[in-house]
Order: sequence, then C-alpha cells, then structure tokens
Amino acid sequence: MPDIIVKKFGGTSVSNPEKIEKVANIIISSYKNNKNIVGVVSAQGNTTDVLIDKAYEINSSPSTREMDVLLSCGEQITISLLTMAIEKKGYAAVSFTGWQAEIITNSNFGNARIQKINTEKIYTELNKRNIVIIAGFQGINEFGDITTLGRGGSDTTAIALACVLKAKKCEIYTDVSGVFTADPKIVKNSKKLSSINYDEMFEMASLGAGVLHNRSVEMAKKYNVELEVKSSIENIEGTIIKNEDKNLEKMLITGVTKDSDIAKISLIGLENKRGAAYKTFSKLAKEEINVDIIIQNMNENEKNISFTISKNNLEKSLKILNKNKNIIKFKNILCDKNLSKISIVGTGMISNPGVASKMFEALHEEKINIHLISTSEIKITVLVESKDAKKAMLAIHKKFFNEF
Amino acid sequence: MPDIIVKKFGGTSVSNPEKIEKVANIIISSYKNNKNIVGVVSAQGNTTDVLIDKAYEINSSPSTREMDVLLSCGEQITISLLTMAIEKKGYAAVSFTGWQAEIITNSNFGNARIQKINTEKIYTELNKRNIVIIAGFQGINEFGDITTLGRGGSDTTAIALACVLKAKKCEIYTDVSGVFTADPKIVKNSKKLSSINYDEMFEMASLGAGVLHNRSVEMAKKYNVELEVKSSIENIEGTIIKNEDKNLEKMLITGVTKDSDIAKISLIGLENKRGAAYKTFSKLAKEEINVDIIIQNMNENEKNISFTISKNNLEKSLKILNKNKNIIKFKNILCDKNLSKISIVGTGMISNPGVASKMFEALHEEKINIHLISTSEIKITVLVESKDAKKAMLAIHKKFFNEF
Repeated sequence: MPDIIVKKFGGTSVSNPEKIEKVANIIISSYKNNKNIVGVVSAQGNTTDVLIDKAYEINSSPSTREMDVLLSCGEQITISLLTMAIEKKGYAAVSFTGWQAEIITNSNFGNARIQKINTEKIYTELNKRNIVIIAGFQGINEFGDITTLGRGGSDTTAIALACVLKAKKCEIYTDVSGVFTADPKIVKNSKKLSSINYDEMFEMASLGAGVLHNRSVEMAKKYNVELEVKSSIENIEGTIIKNEDKNLEKMLITGVTKDSDIAKISLIGLENKRGAAYKTFSKLAKEEINVDIIIQNMNENEKNISFTISKNNLEKSLKILNKNKNIIKFKNILCDKNLSKISIVGTGMISNPGVASKMFEALHEEKINIHLISTSEIKITVLVESKDAKKAMLAIHKKFFNEF
Repeated sequence: MPDIIVKKFGGTSVSNPEKIEKVANIIISSYKNNKNIVGVVSAQGNTTDVLIDKAYEINSSPSTREMDVLLSCGEQITISLLTMAIEKKGYAAVSFTGWQAEIITNSNFGNARIQKINTEKIYTELNKRNIVIIAGFQGINEFGDITTLGRGGSDTTAIALACVLKAKKCEIYTDVSGVFTADPKIVKNSKKLSSINYDEMFEMASLGAGVLHNRSVEMAKKYNVELEVKSSIENIEGTIIKNEDKNLEKMLITGVTKDSDIAKISLIGLENKRGAAYKTFSKLAKEEINVDIIIQNMNENEKNISFTISKNNLEKSLKILNKNKNIIKFKNILCDKNLSKISIVGTGMISNPGVASKMFEALHEEKINIHLISTSEIKITVLVESKDAKKAMLAIHKKFFNEF
C-alpha cells in the first residue's frame, strides 16, 4: 500500500468554495504522487461561532451533550463539501464524521479525549485507493453520544489518526507557512525554521505562538508522529516538527514569543509557613483558573508569591483570593494587567551558558524594565510593560538572530 | 408507562428562538399531562436551501451520498436547539440524530425508505421519563452511511416512529390549523374538517392540499397510525386523520383543491393499435417524468391521449415525445400550460349520485369552460383555464358547503 499522509486543514483554509477547491487540489496532487490521503478538516470560517450564538440565544447554559450535537455539524458540513470538490475533479473520495470514522472518546463533552480509533473502515477505503475525508474535532463515546474535543481538536484528530494509521507524516496546513523565530507580523525579518523538536514546539505553542495547540504537540511527541506545519496558500516547504538529535551546531535559541493576554497577581506578606502555595493554588484550581508562571521568594520571615493568569480571570481570581484571605494568610494583594510575557525558547540554551544574560542585555540596551523573570531548562520568560513588549521582542530577536 | 405521543414540527415551526420556545412549551404541556413525548423536527426555515446552495457552489452534480451527509446537519442543528430549550425550562430531554435513533433505511441516498427502527434506546429514555427529540428526514443504511428520506421525510419519520413505538397518536404541527374544505387563502369561508379518513386525505394531499405528503398518508394508513394535523401557533383542535367507519350522514364531499402547477399534453391521431399508451408512458417514465391524469378516447379509427405533468417537465416531455414520434406513431402533439386542476374529494360521493353533475353545474353557472374531466371513486377532477381557477373553486365550494 502507498504511504499514508494525513493532511489537516483548519477553518480559514476551507472558509469558501475557492479555498475548498484549493484544498482539493493540494490533496489530489499528493494523491497522484502515489500517496494515500486522509484529510482532516475543521468547521468553515466562523461556523462554530454562529452555532454557539444560536445555542446561547435559546439557553444561556446549554447542556454540554447538546452543545456537542450542535457544534459537530460544523465539520460535518465541511467534509461533505470538500468531498464533493474532490469528486468534481474526477477522484474517488468518501467523507466520515467522527462517529463514522469510529473515533472513540471519553464522555467529557466539550473537551473529550480520544481513547481509541477503529481503523478498519478507513483502511478499507484507502485500499480501494479512495481519498478519505474525516471530520476533525469530534468523536463518539461508548454510549453512542456525539462528543467534541475542545480547543485544537482538529489537530488532535489528525495526529491521532496519523498515529493509529501509521502514517508517514501528518501535515498541518495553516494560513502561515511554518513556525518562525518570532511572529512575522511583529518581527519583519524573523526566519522560518526548517525544523524544530517537540519540546521546543511545545514551549513555543504554550507561549502563544498560535500555530499548534500544545495538547497536539504533546500527543505528537508521545506517539512520535512527524508533523509538518505548512501553508495552505503557497506550495512551499513548511516547518518539520520531530524528535531531533541534539546537534552541537544547533541554533542557540529557536524563537522569541510574546503573549499579552496575561495579568500578574502578587500576594505580599505571607507567613513563612508550609502550605501557602498549596492553599493559594488549590482555591484557584477548584474554580478552574489556569495559572501560568509562578514565582515565590522570601525576605526575612515573610514570603511573597507572584503568578500570572489569563486577563479575563483576573476579577474572579481576586474575588476568590480575598474571600480566602484568612485561610491563605497574606497581608496585601497586588495586581497588574498591563504586562506582557516575552519568552525565548530553545534546547540550545541547555549547553550554552550566557543565553539569559544576552537576553537581559538586549532589554537593558533598550531601557526596558523587567518585572519578573522565570526560567526553565529550555525557556526564559520575562514580564515587561505591554507598551514595551514589541520593542523588547525586536531587540531580543535582533540580538540572537542577527548575530548568529 | 404513560401513553406515547409523537409530535412532529416542520421547518417553519422551529425557524427562530421564539418559535423553538413555543414548541418546547407545547411538548412540556403534553408531557406534564402524563404523556411520554417523542418530538420529531425538520431543519429550521430555509436551512436546507442554504446547504443545497453551498453544495452547488462547489459541484453542480454532487454525489447523493455526500449530499445526505450535508443536508442531515439541518435537522441535527434543530434537535440540539430544541432540546436545549426544553432543558432551560427544567425538563429532562435528549436529542437523537437519525443514526442515533437507529432509523435504518435502504441505500437510496436522497430518497431513502425506512426499513426498520430499533426502539430500545428510545424506550430506555422514555422509561426514565425523558423527553426524546429525534431528527426527522434522516436515517442510516446498513453500511453506516447517512441517508435522507426525500420530500415529506420528517412526516414519514414521525409516522414510522409512532408505528414502531405503538404511540397513541402522531400529531403533525404546521402553520395551518388543520385540513380545510378548501385552501383558506383562496376560499375565505372554507371550513376546518374535524376528521377525515386516510383515502380522502391521500387524495387531498396528492392534489396539492399541501399539508401532508402523500407518502406519509400512505404509511399512516398502512400501519393504521392515528394522525392529527394541528397548529403550532394556536392551541386548538386540529383535524384527525384515521380509518373512519363509513358514515351515512357523512358530508357529500370533503374538500375542494386546486393545483396550478400543471401542463397538459395531447397526442392526436394515434393509430388504433395496442401499445400506444405503453410506448408513450414508458418513454416518459424512463426519464423520471411523473404523469398525473391520463385520459384516452377514440374517434373512428384514431385514438387521442391527453395527460398532465408538472409545468417544469413540459419541454423535456415534448422533446422525448417528438424524438419518439415514429415509435409512438402520433400525427400531432398539442400542449397547454395555462390550465389549472380543480378537484373535489370525498368518500361520500361513492353512495351519492349526482355529485359530478353538481360540480359541473357550479362551473356552468359561472360560464367556466371545462377542458378535461377525469374521475375516480372518491375524486372528480376538471381542468379549467388558470384565469378561471379561483372563481371555479369558490363556485364549487359554495355549491357544496353552503347548501349543506
């Protein structure tokens, strides 16, 4: 059997008939090149938002089961349209919804996890040299209910299919042509990376690089699926994401990222006793507030804890913390929502001392004040004032990439 | 277990959030009255047309399999929204698509026939006193493909469900409040029938009364399912359709109908040999042209055949007939597309001679010329010029109902 390639196309790549035709051409071109193609597609353009609005017009807290019945129509529409477009060009294709493709998930409606995929039906079609178009983002639970996979769901579907079908590659088509050393919209001379490893991509994704959801990268790493992020508009090479060998001549850092959707909270004057962090973050976790960076330090007999959250969780978090002031035992609470997070990522920094100081040097030269520093093995993050964020990003990018 | 009532709501009854709420209220009110409710719904308003347009923008002759994948989203959207509306009011409900409700059909995509319905899942939900909302118009074939049932499909779903679930009644909610002696838009003083039998309804439906598709009536008759056609707007009694005993005091006729979407074709000067009708209508049938009324008569050694078809089939039919002129052997062909069909229907006419003459009298009094007459046991049809159709209908209605 020819190699199987899984190709995933997001909502903007299939938002109108012309774009769908373009996607059909990409698929057919690869098919004619003696490949077996499994296409995975998302809902067209803003279809999902339109469906969500429809639900909220009727019920402000719809049950998650019914929401999934509703939302799954989005991809179901796309699979039929794309299959029709392929058939028009004279190639045999067949569409499968999540349940038809037997993508079995748990029952966590709205954010379900794939548990199993029965591949028999898909293989049967591929063996007939049919192109198979599968709805991303959706599955079916053990009771026969429709489920959806939540954010980044179509990528997850594509990667899971690539894994179970033992595909040669999983290609993620987007409106950018790959992964860049920094967002090309901000940093004009940023460079496209020809390859990047899973861990770096994971940090890039979780830092808001926006190309792939971190859950997808995690899955690709776990099952060692080779990914390529590439353009659905231009026919050029993208960025390969795989399990690279560590290379001595590797670039020092892989990229610079920026995330402005953050707010910082500091708890001042905590008693120097065990349990302060646990009490603080368990209260927030119970209300499903995701905390990003956490740093804690100590002065004499007092501790301070600072952490970042998404901006829209700020008010709720302050309310929770103030309510529990006597349990957590802090003296004062401070917050700041005018900060942005700038990070550099790269496995190269492990074996290269001086990366952090180079980053701080770049910021110092631009007279940018650093509000917080946090580091991990392959990432260094700083918080700066949002008004300085773009300048900071450009300075850091220049420092690392123009001298390299 | 409480009695099961199947309630079917068409596309106009669920076209916006307010109407969906109204439907939820109708269902809940009956549920509270100690009934188990199975709701069957169509796609909202013009959703199906929007989806069809989407397909044709991409492929002018899409495969019927993919068309069914696409169109089935219409009802899937409605079932989730209606279920959310019921849940909002605090009642437990669950939605099922055609495949979830296990409505098994043959593989005739776009016009599939229901072969079997597995009732276990539905009974399980009803036994828990849940309201069950099922997508009309759709099913699944033995291979797991999505199918749709074609015109009148949601009515068919509702009636089939009423049959297999041994429901007490199947209520068809529409934007009219029942079956009338004539179209209330044309005949202002037409009367709503409190009941009508299947055969009469069948003739009314096939004559364009527009409330129920004849395929649905046929099915209800076959399985002896009691139907009620009623208003989704006003809470009033509708028209019951059932297997009535023949009643001596029954009304002479049940209703008057009009259909303007017809064209008449006459083949003049056919040889007086066997096979002329067969040759004519087999050629038309092969091209899927439905023929309605057929009359044939003979003068000396020649036969003439006249028949009616839908207006949009006129050109195609003329082309087919002219191409086969030497096989069918006619001398001349005539056609007229400015005619309308007026019919009176009623089992009462079987035992009451003089019904036909009364109809002709009404037309004569209005100086309306009759172009063709055709009669069956419970129906008399005439063709008149379209400009006279409304006048004809009013005159006949007055003759029968105002004197009754």
